[in-house]
Amino acid sequence: MTLRQMFEPSAVAVVGASKTEGKIGYEAMANASEFDGAVYPVNPSTDGELFGASFVDSVTDIDDDVDLALCCVPGPATPDVLEECGEAGIGAAVIYAGGFAEAGPEGEELQAAVVETADEYGISLLGPNTSGFVVPATDLLCSFASGAEKVPPGNTAVIAQSGGVAHVLAFQSRRQGRGVSAMVGLGNRANVGFTETIEYFDADDRTDAIVLHVEGTDDGRGLLEACRASDTPVVAYKVGQSDVGEFAESHTGALTGDHELYTAGFAQYGVPTVDATDDLLDAAAALGDSPEPDGPNVGVVTAQAGPGIIITDRIQRAGGRLPELTQETRDRIDDVLPGLTYTGNPVDTGRPMPEFGDVVTAVAEDDTVDIVLVYELFEQALGFPVEALDGLAERVDKPVLFATDGIEEDMAEDVAALSDVGVPLFETPERAADAAAVLARYAEMHTLAGAGEVVADE
Amino acid sequence: MTLRQMFEPSAVAVVGASKTEGKIGYEAMANASEFDGAVYPVNPSTDGELFGASFVDSVTDIDDDVDLALCCVPGPATPDVLEECGEAGIGAAVIYAGGFAEAGPEGEELQAAVVETADEYGISLLGPNTSGFVVPATDLLCSFASGAEKVPPGNTAVIAQSGGVAHVLAFQSRRQGRGVSAMVGLGNRANVGFTETIEYFDADDRTDAIVLHVEGTDDGRGLLEACRASDTPVVAYKVGQSDVGEFAESHTGALTGDHELYTAGFAQYGVPTVDATDDLLDAAAALGDSPEPDGPNVGVVTAQAGPGIIITDRIQRAGGRLPELTQETRDRIDDVLPGLTYTGNPVDTGRPMPEFGDVVTAVAEDDTVDIVLVYELFEQALGFPVEALDGLAERVDKPVLFATDGIEEDMAEDVAALSDVGVPLFETPERAADAAAVLARYAEMHTLAGAGEVVADE
Repeated sequence: MTLRQMFEPSAVAVVGASKTEGKIGYEAMANASEFDGAVYPVNPSTDGELFGASFVDSVTDIDDDVDLALCCVPGPATPDVLEECGEAGIGAAVIYAGGFAEAGPEGEELQAAVVETADEYGISLLGPNTSGFVVPATDLLCSFASGAEKVPPGNTAVIAQSGGVAHVLAFQSRRQGRGVSAMVGLGNRANVGFTETIEYFDADDRTDAIVLHVEGTDDGRGLLEACRASDTPVVAYKVGQSDVGEFAESHTGALTGDHELYTAGFAQYGVPTVDATDDLLDAAAALGDSPEPDGPNVGVVTAQAGPGIIITDRIQRAGGRLPELTQETRDRIDDVLPGLTYTGNPVDTGRPMPEFGDVVTAVAEDDTVDIVLVYELFEQALGFPVEALDGLAERVDKPVLFATDGIEEDMAEDVAALSDVGVPLFETPERAADAAAVLARYAEMHTLAGAGEVVADE
Repeated sequence: MTLRQMFEPSAVAVVGASKTEGKIGYEAMANASEFDGAVYPVNPSTDGELFGASFVDSVTDIDDDVDLALCCVPGPATPDVLEECGEAGIGAAVIYAGGFAEAGPEGEELQAAVVETADEYGISLLGPNTSGFVVPATDLLCSFASGAEKVPPGNTAVIAQSGGVAHVLAFQSRRQGRGVSAMVGLGNRANVGFTETIEYFDADDRTDAIVLHVEGTDDGRGLLEACRASDTPVVAYKVGQSDVGEFAESHTGALTGDHELYTAGFAQYGVPTVDATDDLLDAAAALGDSPEPDGPNVGVVTAQAGPGIIITDRIQRAGGRLPELTQETRDRIDDVLPGLTYTGNPVDTGRPMPEFGDVVTAVAEDDTVDIVLVYELFEQALGFPVEALDGLAERVDKPVLFATDGIEEDMAEDVAALSDVGVPLFETPERAADAAAVLARYAEMHTLAGAGEVVADE
């Protein structure tokens, strides 16, 4: 199965398109019509036009090479719609409706019928019971949620078991100034699940990191194998440490399963795990926007001691290490700034100063350091050391993360400048430290443990 | 000792004021001059005016009732400056300079000398080694950091051991749309520490919640007693679970101490603890903007199942409970929305809908529920249930928290409307759940354990 027809369709049909605002068939058509290619509203009981396109009665009536059908019809009508899609040669479909495997025995039967038809015709099914997906770079908005059109393009692929969480992550990534290469809500995973989407986005040129939101799956082995096979870094957020079984089952038809088993499995297969939506996107930014780290040793440069203590503490607790810097580096720093508050690791300059960038460079060039984390409160008169950070990560071939707090408008220009030169940015001392720790754990999984060689017993 | 002269001064003197931009004496004067009352630049080697005020040679030359001196002089000059402050009848001083107890034996001697002079004249000392404090409501900006003037007034008092972290928290509270009643960086705590500031802000009319950033203190008992005596809710963020001892000591002269002892001590004295700066401000918003919760039972209403699972899981892990709703409540919800996805706790409406507010009201009126948490992704056509939430917390006399994700500009008007009617708002499912769990723990500490009666052995 390829998901090319799903995520790179020639043309799109919206089955069950509606002229009534507020209905899913209207909202889905409104979003889909942003797409560059042709979009056909399909509804046998409606005539005329919608968003400039003429209604047709059936997908079999379309004289165009349609790859993707967005099914905005109730659950029971879905098998017939899919049958027509198959006849029309459509290779991918999104099923928004609920009432399938998540809703008890009758729903399970309905889902089995849908999968049978899909398999017969070779149709990739996203859903049922999903709010769909979005590919911002091509304005392919296959979600009925409002605001989907404003999620900016980025280099992180969001693959979430829950359509709601997929949207949470997409909206958060926008608020963080990042964006996504794609946002996918898997829902019931009738025949497109984690495995297929990880494979697709690993090969996607726009994607530099893949994040997973996982509630539970019957095919844990397949999920882990797909993660290991991915050249693109994968980070996972496994939900459900306490007992939320009954409610989770009613949601996407999956038990949340044993949290510790998942965490250990992910670690063994080279996937760092995190514990919150914002941490997931931070981890993706750290991994996707950086050279691959060679080890877990973090060099921290801070302009204020208090945040530096927070960062140091947190990195150490989360699996990173703060090595002693070489004497050469300490001497270099002493030359730049004689009598610093603290020249261990972290290096603490006491406050922002013109030489801050030189100190960062010295630490980044220290061979004992695998990952660099820089923190400073914004100081209007000095700004950020953009020149020193421009190209630094590539030159020293290690991740260089930057975090700050300040008045947003005052520092907007400097933040944009850092972003333009590709520096991964973080919002609080803790979130930056957590991202650095993810890089440290990722390095240990991929360089020391040789995760690629290990075969787990399950 | 009263801190009235510190935080409500009649007039302010800036000792060591300077005309040179970038110097602390200039930046401190620039910020201080925003104050409504008189501000006097003091420097024997400078003439003329600065920000419209004429230089004087010494605080003893000012013919006005000055309460507060901001000391922008080097450490060694501080004892003489304080002596003059004492002669001039000034009752409060901020010492920005470092080089005191945090810097070794000589600095300790210097600090002892300063404290002796202060005690002789009854001067309250903030610092040394601090970036100062800010009271936004009166434009009292006694910090030399840029951006301090843009921190908005709010109802949370930030008391941080580190001046840097005080600013981190103030800037974050602004980004979150909240603000502070005051932001205080304690630094070395020469004679003003946690105890004195907690007492002061407990009695402050503008303060509804107090948050503490704690690295370590020799007077743990005093800190805990002050927390217990406070009628205003206190939340603490104790930094330093791993070994950051040497670096921490170089910072504010305090060891970070034993983390678990602190956490247990705080719990016993009625203070919930959190583990990040943003969580600290979230907890303050939940406690400060809500009626006091009577118990740890959280009723969750969500419009999307995926975020609902995240919230449920996290509340349970952090010490909250999700009780079964009464049959009456379930019947009410069934009347409003027949055939809901899930009518347990959480109540899951499946997507935003016009009846969402009625469902929230039903859950809030359930007597088994002590705390209400509402989550929904923003949907443009529906907006938020502002009418249902307006006054709800007061009417049912329990906290009602609201969290959402969406496109910021699209939901700005609705977010402002919720904020205007006093609903505490949160940014992600996890942060809302963590805030609800803080309320749950707070309720257990203050209603069940009778924390006010317990005397701990230390």
